[in-house]
Amino acid sequence: MKSIYFDNAATSNPKPKIVIEAVQDYLKNICASPGRGGYGLGLEAGRIIFEAREKIRHLFNGPSEENIIFTPNVTYALNFALLGILKPGDHVITTSMEHNSVIRPLRLLEKNRNVEISIVKCNKKGELDPSDIIKEIKPSTKAIVFTHASNVSGTILPVESLPEFKNHTDAFIILDAAQTAGVIDIDFEKSGLDFLGFTGHKALYGPPGTGGLVMSRRAGKAIMPTICGGTGSRSDMEFQPDFTPDKMEAGTPNTAGIAGLSAGLDFINENGVDKIHKHEMKLTKIFIDGLKQIPKVKIYGPDEIEKRVSTVSITIDDSDMGELAFRLDVEYGIMIRSGLHCSPLGHKTLGTFPEGTLRFSFGYFNTEEEVEYGLNVIKELAQE
Amino acid sequence: MKSIYFDNAATSNPKPKIVIEAVQDYLKNICASPGRGGYGLGLEAGRIIFEAREKIRHLFNGPSEENIIFTPNVTYALNFALLGILKPGDHVITTSMEHNSVIRPLRLLEKNRNVEISIVKCNKKGELDPSDIIKEIKPSTKAIVFTHASNVSGTILPVESLPEFKNHTDAFIILDAAQTAGVIDIDFEKSGLDFLGFTGHKALYGPPGTGGLVMSRRAGKAIMPTICGGTGSRSDMEFQPDFTPDKMEAGTPNTAGIAGLSAGLDFINENGVDKIHKHEMKLTKIFIDGLKQIPKVKIYGPDEIEKRVSTVSITIDDSDMGELAFRLDVEYGIMIRSGLHCSPLGHKTLGTFPEGTLRFSFGYFNTEEEVEYGLNVIKELAQE
Repeated sequence: MKSIYFDNAATSNPKPKIVIEAVQDYLKNICASPGRGGYGLGLEAGRIIFEAREKIRHLFNGPSEENIIFTPNVTYALNFALLGILKPGDHVITTSMEHNSVIRPLRLLEKNRNVEISIVKCNKKGELDPSDIIKEIKPSTKAIVFTHASNVSGTILPVESLPEFKNHTDAFIILDAAQTAGVIDIDFEKSGLDFLGFTGHKALYGPPGTGGLVMSRRAGKAIMPTICGGTGSRSDMEFQPDFTPDKMEAGTPNTAGIAGLSAGLDFINENGVDKIHKHEMKLTKIFIDGLKQIPKVKIYGPDEIEKRVSTVSITIDDSDMGELAFRLDVEYGIMIRSGLHCSPLGHKTLGTFPEGTLRFSFGYFNTEEEVEYGLNVIKELAQE
Repeated sequence: MKSIYFDNAATSNPKPKIVIEAVQDYLKNICASPGRGGYGLGLEAGRIIFEAREKIRHLFNGPSEENIIFTPNVTYALNFALLGILKPGDHVITTSMEHNSVIRPLRLLEKNRNVEISIVKCNKKGELDPSDIIKEIKPSTKAIVFTHASNVSGTILPVESLPEFKNHTDAFIILDAAQTAGVIDIDFEKSGLDFLGFTGHKALYGPPGTGGLVMSRRAGKAIMPTICGGTGSRSDMEFQPDFTPDKMEAGTPNTAGIAGLSAGLDFINENGVDKIHKHEMKLTKIFIDGLKQIPKVKIYGPDEIEKRVSTVSITIDDSDMGELAFRLDVEYGIMIRSGLHCSPLGHKTLGTFPEGTLRFSFGYFNTEEEVEYGLNVIKELAQE
C-alpha cells in the first residue's frame, strides 16, 4: 500500500537528510553543554547555537542575534511573549482564527491577571479585515496578536497592514508564524513586528523540540522572563540576568535539536523560500481545482489561491470526518488529520464546529502524483 | 592528545549507542505529531511517549503515568512546580546549596507574587541538618524544595528525612533530582515526595531537550499550568484542560528527544542503577584518595564517600581556577568546568564564592585509567 504524508501543518515529514545527520553528528561527536564549560566541545556547542541564531536572523531579517531566543516549540514562544508583556489591566486584541497556542494563554491571563481580550471576527473564509483590528484599539491596548496563516483553512492574514496599526497604537505586535515560517517571506524589520513566534519542526524542516521568538529591540527590553534558572551567565546572581537572549533561555538548551534546525535552515536557504512556496502552491492549486469537480465536497477558506498556504480543510456531505480520516489511513495509506486541529475558534469562524474538517497539508516533499492519488481517493469516498 | 570528559554533572557524554539510534530512527521513520493525527505514524509517536512515561514511573516508583510530564529540561520542571503551586503570600523553604534553577524562580516569585523565602543554611561541606528545615516550618509554608545532591560539591541531602517533615506540615515537597536521577535509587511513593524534577541528558543518558516532573496525585491535582496551548485533547475548549498530563504539556513535544530518553532508560535498566552508582563511586574514591596526597589541593564537600555523588569540587592554592581549566583542556585534553556552576548559593556555603572551583564529575563511561591520568595532571599543575 502507498504511504502518503499530507499532515505537514502538524509537522513536516520526511526531514531532509542533512537535518537527521546534524542531530546524529551532535549526539555522537559533541554533546557538551553550550556556554557552560570553557573547553573545546562546550565552545563548539555554543557555536552551533550562535550560528542557528544568525541563520534565523537572516531568514526573517531580525534586528540582532541577541534578540532571537530558542524555545521548545512555538507554543512556548507565544506564551513567553504574551506572559512576558501583558500586565494586569492590559488589553489585547486577537482574531477568531487563532490556534489554542494563542487563545489558551490569553484565557489564562484573563483569569489570573485580569487581562481584557477583544477577539476580532474574521469572515467565513477566515479572512481578517484589518480595519476591524483598528476599531478595537484603545489606550490600554498593550498587544495585538494574530496568526500569519490559519492552521485550519490555510487563510493568510494581512501582515502588510501592520504598519497601519502602528499609526494608531504603540501596542506590541505579535505574529504566530507557525504555519508560514519557511514558506512565506517575512521581513521582520520592515513589517514593524515586535514578536515573531516560529516553530522548528514544520516548514523549517527541523526536528521537534525546537522553535523560538524573534524580538524587536524594544520587545527584547520589555519582555519579562517566565522561566528562570541557570544561564551560564552572571552565575554570581540569584536573579535572572536582564539581557537577551540569556534572560529568556534558562537551563540546558536542546542543542541536538538546534543543530538539526540549523541544518533545516540550510535546506531552506539552498532551495529558497520562493521555490518551496511555489511548489507547495502548485500542489494546492491542483488539489483545490480537483476538489471542485467532486460533488458533496465543501472546501473552506479563501477562493483565491494567493490568499492561502498549502493547508486545505474540507468536509464531505453525509460522511463522518473521523471515520473518513481513519479509512484514508488504513485503506489508502493517506495520512491527514481530522477534527478541530487545536483551533475551536477557527472552526467556529468557518462554520465547522464542533464536527471539524478533514485537513490536507502539503510540504516540499509531496508530489503531483500524490495529490492526484489523493483526489481519486476522495472522489471514490464521496461517491459511496 | 587524550580526550577525557569529566563534566558529566553538566551533561553525560558519550551517549549510549542505543540512544543515538533511537533519535535517528524516530527522525527517519516516524516523525509525526503524537496524540494529534489518528493515523498509524501519529499513534506510533504517541506510543513512544507513553512507553517513556511508563519507564519513568517504574524507575522512580511514581504513582501513575498520567502524573508524569515531560519538559524541555529540569529547570522547566522545577519552574512548573514552583510557579504552579506557590500563590501570593505563600512561604517556601529551601537550602543554601540550591542551583539557580531553584533560587532564580523563587526570587521571581518573591518579587511578583510576594512569596516569602526561607533559605536554610547548610554547613561548610554542603550538608543539611533536617531539623533546620523543620524549625522554619510555619502555617503559611506551602512548599519545601531542595536538591537531592549538590551540583557543586556532590553532597547528598537527606531525602530520608522527608517523612519526618510530613509530621510537621502539609507543604508540597519538591526534589531537584538533576544530579541523582539514574545514579541513586529514588522511591517516589515511599519518600513522600510531591514533585521530583529530573533531567534527561545527565545520568539518564538521554539527549538534551528532555526532562520532566513526577507528581503525587495531590500535586497533579493542585498544580496550575504555566504554559498553555494545544494539547490534542479537548480541542473544543479555549481553556487548558484540567487533567494531567495534558494540562502541563502544551504544544508539539520533543518526541525525538523522548525516544532517545526512553532508550537511555533502557540503558539504565540493563545496567542497573546500583552498578552504575558503584562504578562512579569507585572512581570518585580513587580520585579523592589521590587528591589527598597532593599538597595545595583543597577538596570541598563531605569526607565520607557515601555522602557524595561522583562530583568533586577542588581548588589549588595560588592558582587561578579559570586558567587551570583552560590548561587542563588545551594541554592535557581533560574537560572539566570551572567557575560557579550556576550555584552562587552553593559556593557561598562552601566558602568558594566568587572565585569558584574546578569541578570534576564522573560518569559510567569513565575509567580508572582516566581518573589516574587526571590525578597525575593535577599533581603536575599543583607542583608548578
